[in-house]
Amino acid sequence: MLDPVSPIPLYYQLKTILLDQILQGDWKVGDLLPSENELAQAYKVSRATVRRALAELQREGRVHTRKGKGSIVAQPKIEQDLLRFYSLARSFGKEPHQVSSRILYLDKTNADPVIARHLCITTTTPVVIVRRLRCLDKHPIMLETSYLPSSICPGLEQETHLEALYDHLEARYGIYVSRAEEFLQAVSATKEEASYLQLPRDMPVFLVERIAYAPDATAVEFRRSIIRADRFRYKVELR
Amino acid sequence: MLDPVSPIPLYYQLKTILLDQILQGDWKVGDLLPSENELAQAYKVSRATVRRALAELQREGRVHTRKGKGSIVAQPKIEQDLLRFYSLARSFGKEPHQVSSRILYLDKTNADPVIARHLCITTTTPVVIVRRLRCLDKHPIMLETSYLPSSICPGLEQETHLEALYDHLEARYGIYVSRAEEFLQAVSATKEEASYLQLPRDMPVFLVERIAYAPDATAVEFRRSIIRADRFRYKVELR
Repeated sequence: MLDPVSPIPLYYQLKTILLDQILQGDWKVGDLLPSENELAQAYKVSRATVRRALAELQREGRVHTRKGKGSIVAQPKIEQDLLRFYSLARSFGKEPHQVSSRILYLDKTNADPVIARHLCITTTTPVVIVRRLRCLDKHPIMLETSYLPSSICPGLEQETHLEALYDHLEARYGIYVSRAEEFLQAVSATKEEASYLQLPRDMPVFLVERIAYAPDATAVEFRRSIIRADRFRYKVELR
Repeated sequence: MLDPVSPIPLYYQLKTILLDQILQGDWKVGDLLPSENELAQAYKVSRATVRRALAELQREGRVHTRKGKGSIVAQPKIEQDLLRFYSLARSFGKEPHQVSSRILYLDKTNADPVIARHLCITTTTPVVIVRRLRCLDKHPIMLETSYLPSSICPGLEQETHLEALYDHLEARYGIYVSRAEEFLQAVSATKEEASYLQLPRDMPVFLVERIAYAPDATAVEFRRSIIRADRFRYKVELR
C-alpha cells in the first residue's frame, strides 16, 4: 500500500494512511493501534519509519502514547469557532459533558503596570484577580487569570464559586460584555502551568489574552488563559 | 519597587516591571537588558527570581537570550488579524520589508487519502504539491505545503518561482480564491521543521491548515503551514 518510488517519504505515506483510517472510523477513540512491529510487517517498512509516522500523529494530537502499551486513538480536539464568543460553560455546560472551575486564587490588590495598561486604569486602582482551573469532564483544560477593576464588581473577591464569570457579572452587577479583543499565542507551558494542566513540561499551549469591553467601551476584564493545545484547535473562516 | 508582602510572586512582579519598561520604550528592540546580577541588586531579589522573570519574558517572545550575552529585547511579534485574508507577500511585500520564498519541493503526484478528503477529490486525482520556505527580511518564518488539483492549474509544477501563489493562480489560470477555512493548532516543531525555521527542536509553532475555495465552492487548495510562534500572534475581535 506504500509507494516506494513516490517522492513522498514513506513515514508520511504511512502517517496519512493511519490518519485516514482514524478519520473514517476504522479506529475509534480509545482504540489501541497495532504495535510498531505489526505495522512494520504489515506495511513492509522499518520500525524507525513506523515510529516517525506515529510521532507525527502524536504531535498532531491524533493519538497519545502510553508507555509499554502503544498508541491509542485520542479524542478529537475541541473545535472553537474564533468568530463566536466563547464560553466554556455555555458550550459544554450540558449533558453529556461536565464543566467545572476550581478557584485557585481570588483577591483584591492594586493593578500592576501591565494590567493597568490593558484596562486603561492607573496603577493605584484596585483590581480583583481571579485565577481558575477549568475542567471538562474532570480533566483540566484551561488555566485562566482574570483581572477586573474592583469598582465595577465590589465584593467579587468574596465569592466562593465562579463558574460562568460573565453570567455572574450580568446577574450581580448588571455588567454586560459586548465586545472583546483576543490575542492568540503559542508558547511552552511553564512548570507550574504544566503541573496544573497535567501536561509534560514545555508542551506547547495556547496563551490567549483577552480584553473584554462593556457596551460603553469601558474595559471590564483583562484575561490571560493558558489552554491545552492537545485538546483545542481554533477555526476561522476568511472571506 | 517590588512589594514583598503582595500575594503576587516576586518574579511575576519583576517580569511585569520589565515588560512595562519594554512596552513604554525604555528598552528598545536589540537592547541588552541589565545582567541577572545587576537586576538582582537593583530590585533586591535573588538571581533565581531574576532568572524566572527573564524566562517568562523569553517564553512570551519579549526577549531572546544569547549565550554569554544576556537577554536582548526582541522584535514585537507580527500581528495577524484573523478576520482578514492573509497574504505574506501583500502584507510585507513593500519597503522596508523584504519577503522571499524558496521552493523546497514542487511536483505532481496522486492525491493521498487525507488530501483527497480535504479537496473533495479521489485518491487517483493528480495534485501539484508545492513546498515553500517563506522568509521575512531574510529570516525564515513559515514552511508552507500547498496541494492543488492539477486539473485547475496545469503546468504549475514547472514554475521556478512562486512568490504570491494566489496572484499567480489569478493571473495564469483565472482562479480566484474567495473563501477559506483555517484551523489553528499549536504543536512542537519536528526536527526537520526546526531546522528549516532555524529554531531549537520542540519549540512551539503554529500548525495552520487551510482549505481555500473558488467562488463556485470548488476546493482549490489545501495548505499546511508551520509558522514560527515566536514571530507571530493572531488577533481576533469578538462581538
